[in-house]
Amino acid sequence: MAQPRTVTAAVIIIGNEVLSGRTADANLPFLAKALNGVGVLVREARIIPDNEAIIVETVNSCRQAFDYVLTTGGIGPTHDDVTSASIAKAFGVPLERNPQALRALEQHYRPGEFNEARRKMADIPAGASLIDNPVSKAPGFQIGNVFVLPGVPVIMRAMFDGIRERLRGGEPMLSRSIAAYTTEGAIASGLGRIQARNSDVEIGSYPFVRAGRFGVSLVAKSTNRDSLDNVAKEIKALIREVGETPIEDDAT
Amino acid sequence: MAQPRTVTAAVIIIGNEVLSGRTADANLPFLAKALNGVGVLVREARIIPDNEAIIVETVNSCRQAFDYVLTTGGIGPTHDDVTSASIAKAFGVPLERNPQALRALEQHYRPGEFNEARRKMADIPAGASLIDNPVSKAPGFQIGNVFVLPGVPVIMRAMFDGIRERLRGGEPMLSRSIAAYTTEGAIASGLGRIQARNSDVEIGSYPFVRAGRFGVSLVAKSTNRDSLDNVAKEIKALIREVGETPIEDDAT
Repeated sequence: MAQPRTVTAAVIIIGNEVLSGRTADANLPFLAKALNGVGVLVREARIIPDNEAIIVETVNSCRQAFDYVLTTGGIGPTHDDVTSASIAKAFGVPLERNPQALRALEQHYRPGEFNEARRKMADIPAGASLIDNPVSKAPGFQIGNVFVLPGVPVIMRAMFDGIRERLRGGEPMLSRSIAAYTTEGAIASGLGRIQARNSDVEIGSYPFVRAGRFGVSLVAKSTNRDSLDNVAKEIKALIREVGETPIEDDAT
Repeated sequence: MAQPRTVTAAVIIIGNEVLSGRTADANLPFLAKALNGVGVLVREARIIPDNEAIIVETVNSCRQAFDYVLTTGGIGPTHDDVTSASIAKAFGVPLERNPQALRALEQHYRPGEFNEARRKMADIPAGASLIDNPVSKAPGFQIGNVFVLPGVPVIMRAMFDGIRERLRGGEPMLSRSIAAYTTEGAIASGLGRIQARNSDVEIGSYPFVRAGRFGVSLVAKSTNRDSLDNVAKEIKALIREVGETPIEDDAT
């Protein structure tokens, strides 16, 4: 059987407020799951400041290394919103006031409110296609394999719906998660042997504390349903071997 | 007056579970604030998989570009914990069973429990100095300008206390945060002018919704207290100009 092609993505989170610890990013968990749902695997995320030179370098490095790049943040009306200009620079194209974006924004604001700062949100790199914003009208855009989205999670999520159909994924990654009230150290060697026997399944081990009890979640991932089910069976047997009860978790 | 030197750091979050969206990272917000407290500015964060080649490349790139690098994750006993071996490879040194780490772990486990998988947690790159783990004994380590910490937040935080004194920071970044129930678009041009007049202060603008009302937090950062206070005064005047009331926020 031919190995299914893995389609990869990088997520670039642009925002001084995330790097300073003021804001905890909530976009990566959403994007990672949503992308996996269309068969695209997030292989790296970078959190970078609102700085043109750094955005240009990061975007250019990631768009060559991954099938898709998604950015969040920095497309609002204030002086620290430099993402659109930086992406134009990364692609070597001018930043242009987009008539379609301008019209959508114009209809959104009351007369007299559509000032120059707000018009700036219609500045889009030449050649980009718009991504509709059903919440607050200021659009995102796609240029090449790069999708530019806002940082406010509720708006970003609404806009992701509009790009889902533009993404061409591979086979989605399936997963099974099995938990037990045991420790990593007790099962590590057996788990390593299961991993060694099953190269088309990736097994991760994640300790947790629930209601004061220590446990481990074992997460198996594969694009092959049969291999996955077999590994889940082996993991359950291992847990029983150390005298504990396997608990099927939500698969994420 | 001489420009104070900025001391920078990169945070590398190692973990398939963060990239898959299964786990939302909680370590970056803590580390960003804690590092700022000792005068070290986080300038980039990368989230990467538990993959030796990628860890080696990322660590080697970051340790040259930043004063400090802190990694979290991947130092447990299971097969997917490959951080220590990868860091050894990045520095071109062997991974050795560290007698001091072995002793600490040995005393922690009951007789018969200290199996080979758990002994693996005493494998440390040659030449590294240990970072004490007051919670579960498995140590982190420092090699060169790279500090290797665990991914479990409660343990990571306890261990950070032990490295605070090893970090030589510059002047800490001070900040003031002023909120108002207005929109970014209403104040963007005035804010841009304040930023243009005050190059030693970095002003960020962050929209929020509180109890159904839209607002903006304006965060000013500088190592210079006088410049910062002056900018805060100008921001308050701008907010009053658009007919709103400035609210002093928690400064973060």
